[in-house]
Amino acid sequence: MKKISLLGSTGSIGTQTLDVIKSHPEEFSLAAMTAGKNITLAAEQIALFKPSLVSVERKEDAERLQKEFPNIRVLFGRDGLIEAASYKEADFLMNAVMGSVGLEPTLAAIEAGKDIGIANKETLVTAGHIVTQAAKKHEALLLPVDSEHSAIYQCLLGNRREDVDRLIITASGGSFRDLNRDQLQNVTKEDALNHPNWSMGAKITIDSATMMNKGFEVIEAHWLFDMAYDDIEVVIHRESIVHSLVEYKDKSVIAHLGSPDMRVPIQFALSQPKRLELKDTNRLNLWEAGALHFSKPDFDRYRCLQYAYDAGKTGGTMTAVLNAANEIAVAEFLAGRISFVAIEEYIEKAMHRHSSQRAPDLQTILEVDKETREYVASLIG
Amino acid sequence: MKKISLLGSTGSIGTQTLDVIKSHPEEFSLAAMTAGKNITLAAEQIALFKPSLVSVERKEDAERLQKEFPNIRVLFGRDGLIEAASYKEADFLMNAVMGSVGLEPTLAAIEAGKDIGIANKETLVTAGHIVTQAAKKHEALLLPVDSEHSAIYQCLLGNRREDVDRLIITASGGSFRDLNRDQLQNVTKEDALNHPNWSMGAKITIDSATMMNKGFEVIEAHWLFDMAYDDIEVVIHRESIVHSLVEYKDKSVIAHLGSPDMRVPIQFALSQPKRLELKDTNRLNLWEAGALHFSKPDFDRYRCLQYAYDAGKTGGTMTAVLNAANEIAVAEFLAGRISFVAIEEYIEKAMHRHSSQRAPDLQTILEVDKETREYVASLIG
Repeated sequence: MKKISLLGSTGSIGTQTLDVIKSHPEEFSLAAMTAGKNITLAAEQIALFKPSLVSVERKEDAERLQKEFPNIRVLFGRDGLIEAASYKEADFLMNAVMGSVGLEPTLAAIEAGKDIGIANKETLVTAGHIVTQAAKKHEALLLPVDSEHSAIYQCLLGNRREDVDRLIITASGGSFRDLNRDQLQNVTKEDALNHPNWSMGAKITIDSATMMNKGFEVIEAHWLFDMAYDDIEVVIHRESIVHSLVEYKDKSVIAHLGSPDMRVPIQFALSQPKRLELKDTNRLNLWEAGALHFSKPDFDRYRCLQYAYDAGKTGGTMTAVLNAANEIAVAEFLAGRISFVAIEEYIEKAMHRHSSQRAPDLQTILEVDKETREYVASLIG
Repeated sequence: MKKISLLGSTGSIGTQTLDVIKSHPEEFSLAAMTAGKNITLAAEQIALFKPSLVSVERKEDAERLQKEFPNIRVLFGRDGLIEAASYKEADFLMNAVMGSVGLEPTLAAIEAGKDIGIANKETLVTAGHIVTQAAKKHEALLLPVDSEHSAIYQCLLGNRREDVDRLIITASGGSFRDLNRDQLQNVTKEDALNHPNWSMGAKITIDSATMMNKGFEVIEAHWLFDMAYDDIEVVIHRESIVHSLVEYKDKSVIAHLGSPDMRVPIQFALSQPKRLELKDTNRLNLWEAGALHFSKPDFDRYRCLQYAYDAGKTGGTMTAVLNAANEIAVAEFLAGRISFVAIEEYIEKAMHRHSSQRAPDLQTILEVDKETREYVASLIG
């Protein structure tokens, strides 16, 4: 029985993680969970999964839940999040919170010797060097939860690390993959949120349309699999059936395929190295799929992808700038205050202005994050 | 240093095996080799690779080679083949002889505790139960050498056998994949030998056009990977870039891709579990490939594939009948004496007439093989 601490229980990855736990009661149980402000859903989840520790964002919500569930511990805020992450009753941390708030809990869990499912992008994008070093020191396993890195992890099984030549990450191309640069000028938020293959939150759907999401994945892959940026390639694959590939030095390429269903990588992170039945999801039917298409990404068309490679290669605090500038710009686009193509302009400005500091500590990363957000917000006014 | 005994050194797989050995002199050496009647090429190979034991088909050729190479042992015929297969100076047998003559040497090598690269179809098609039982008993590793089974072997690495749901073998569809049944009536030998993706010998190119080759691969996969026939599927994939796939019970599908180059599976059989550089072969370029197509095989169009499933499910001596009838029918087609579609008619007749014997021994298999050949030859007259 694997006892899981789940951060971000009410989000997309969080609810799907609970789905997986529910499907395999003989394998998994929920030891702890944290949620944000969706207290109604959190209360339902507590009633169903009976964790012994819960944390939420606000004090008043914690007090309300504590009254409703007197037999469990209910905490709140940053301290509650960190306590849930390093909870001694849990074997495994599933970190599915969004934003840079996910960073400290990951480090706390690593120090407490947990294995960690990483669904929080910021953890590796902004602090990859700190997280991977800590994981090495404490022998904590970092298990990727998004479909691309889970695919790569699975394609590496049974092979020697030194035999790997190249990682190939597939990208759907997002909502606007059939538009050229001119056509991008006047796209709306509604257009952008209509992703062709995956049903996800608003922020990540926009990141998919700009391909910043893919850029983050390149940076994550660099840290997770210790690969040079020049050996990580992105290929556009509109069907999202091939989730990623690994090329070996004998020219063998191993790929992971399947229907788009986030429960596959979530469950694999929890169950690995073994696999469990996954019901209610479609088997891949290649002849129904008919054809799988691949094309080269245009780095001028997808400038965010270029910025991500640039930030990754520069390293240090530059990836924190990339992430923070993107987060503010996307929020402003979603609020209808800037155009779609302006997202990349603000990111470029923020990166251009910044002098990267090498090997920053957590405090420095959080300061750069804050400072970049303020700068981009001030530009937009 | 892995010392290799190579049976069938002058054939397509044989010469490519020597290519691989030559490319990695620090990893591999040739301890023994056997050849048929191509003594000129065999002599060149002996001069270059310096094996200490050689065997050829005919006594007079052996005597000629012995004179030319007085410092090595030169044998001939069945005994020479078996002695080379179980040669004590070798760690590994690469069995690349064609036909049922490959059966006994495989068993001799298993009993001598060698690991074995199987490029000889008949070994598993006609005597799968004997070979796999013997390999289990003597803890010999059976390593597939054709691209499909090598792909499956690689897609199984790092996974538990009990987590596998299904094997998916890809098929190019052969030279006549765009013809319907009517159009097949008058195709010629020259048409058939023009395979779209792979450059191979005449017999296997015809087997590819009838898809009997794929049928044999289904039977081999059944034995190599201990899978029920209902869990082995064939999918038409015209580009031959995806070499085969494995579906797991969590709906993850792992695939092996690459440019068509037989040296990839040959080298992997020799080098596994590690991989070695493979030079002078193209890296897979997905965006140059552009699209990968998949379709369902039509079992009425490709009757030989249906016969292979039928023979496999019947088991016993039926697969020996399938193989022997096919060998004679293909030879007759290549000699211009029967039409392309008549190949399957003769196979059907031979299978229809035969009552399968369960779990036959080697002697029985060889008798059924001989008897079937005579029967089919007598029908053609």
